[in-house]
Amino acid sequence: MADVVESRLRDYFKKKSFKPGDALPKELELAEALGVSRNVVREALSRLRMLGMIESRKKRGMILASPDILGAFERVLDPLIITEETLQDLFELRLVLEMGLADVLFINITPEHLKQLDLIVEAEVTDSQTFRIKNEIAFHGKLYEIAGNDTLKRFQNMLLPIFGYVLKLEKELISGTVSHKDLVDLLKGGDKEKFRMGMHAHLKPHFDKLEQLKK
Amino acid sequence: MADVVESRLRDYFKKKSFKPGDALPKELELAEALGVSRNVVREALSRLRMLGMIESRKKRGMILASPDILGAFERVLDPLIITEETLQDLFELRLVLEMGLADVLFINITPEHLKQLDLIVEAEVTDSQTFRIKNEIAFHGKLYEIAGNDTLKRFQNMLLPIFGYVLKLEKELISGTVSHKDLVDLLKGGDKEKFRMGMHAHLKPHFDKLEQLKK
Repeated sequence: MADVVESRLRDYFKKKSFKPGDALPKELELAEALGVSRNVVREALSRLRMLGMIESRKKRGMILASPDILGAFERVLDPLIITEETLQDLFELRLVLEMGLADVLFINITPEHLKQLDLIVEAEVTDSQTFRIKNEIAFHGKLYEIAGNDTLKRFQNMLLPIFGYVLKLEKELISGTVSHKDLVDLLKGGDKEKFRMGMHAHLKPHFDKLEQLKK
Repeated sequence: MADVVESRLRDYFKKKSFKPGDALPKELELAEALGVSRNVVREALSRLRMLGMIESRKKRGMILASPDILGAFERVLDPLIITEETLQDLFELRLVLEMGLADVLFINITPEHLKQLDLIVEAEVTDSQTFRIKNEIAFHGKLYEIAGNDTLKRFQNMLLPIFGYVLKLEKELISGTVSHKDLVDLLKGGDKEKFRMGMHAHLKPHFDKLEQLKK
């Protein structure tokens, strides 16, 4: 029932051409307009509020809002409850993002960014799986930050627990022949294609596993 | 209030180590366990149900479920209500995905896929912006399908209205020097690096715009 009313509320807002920032009718009016009980409308409104699509403002009542598009996603991204297949899909998605990042990276990178990457690489400790995961997060997280796309950066931040979880499942410390330090050198070199090939070599053990899985 | 109870319910399920498929306590028991009213618990449960984290089963009552991680995302991805900045971020995310897809694509592609791409390219009509968008969706959608990652494919499907919306905002029909047909030829050629460079040339007008924006 709440599903149906949630969907009808969305249609109603659309039909009335409400835009973000517009004041919305009160709960009671909405219940009357849709011909349903106030309790059901309240439940549906609660869902839309959770998604950030409506907000309550003092004195102005409810307004339509620009939703936080990743907020709801964040709420369900728990490696303990999502299926193994989805975990695998998300890990693969990470590989796609890392490989695709080069162009945006080269558009945005500054000498200051390169210094920050140097510091991260110098601080790396590589003798345990836990530290390896920390290095991964610090280094690759910085790359996303440099790319300068807030949505992408938050998206990757959310995926981090998933990557950590999948990496922990791997028994040995697998590592490509190209290190984080090598990648920083390639960034400094300024050749996008070489960087991309370096990133592929860095991620190669993961791609090899993918290739085995697909066979 | 529903926010707080939603979060407390999550913690409660975690503390009790419930796994997907496990039967959950009844509404009334949960209300007592958390010391809140049944109405508030019902509202919080409704939110979790919306996220696919709980399901109601005949005879078994509520069970903890593996959520559909993209379901909630889908509900808020409406170009009319999300901010312009987020639209731009998502468009950029699309470029990153397209550029990063090559490796997974080459792992999965079959002669049958190449035939399907041939058919799509032959059917292309390029004399209006509307057709251009349809071509884009058919061609690039097929590439994601070939990549064989359900989450990624659904994610890109959800982003399609956003791309369509952003493309419509562009006044002229901008186009790279490499066509969809050229990309299919590069796929047939089997050289991943050449394909990647072709994809970049295909998307170049978008990258150029990005570069201008960042300056």
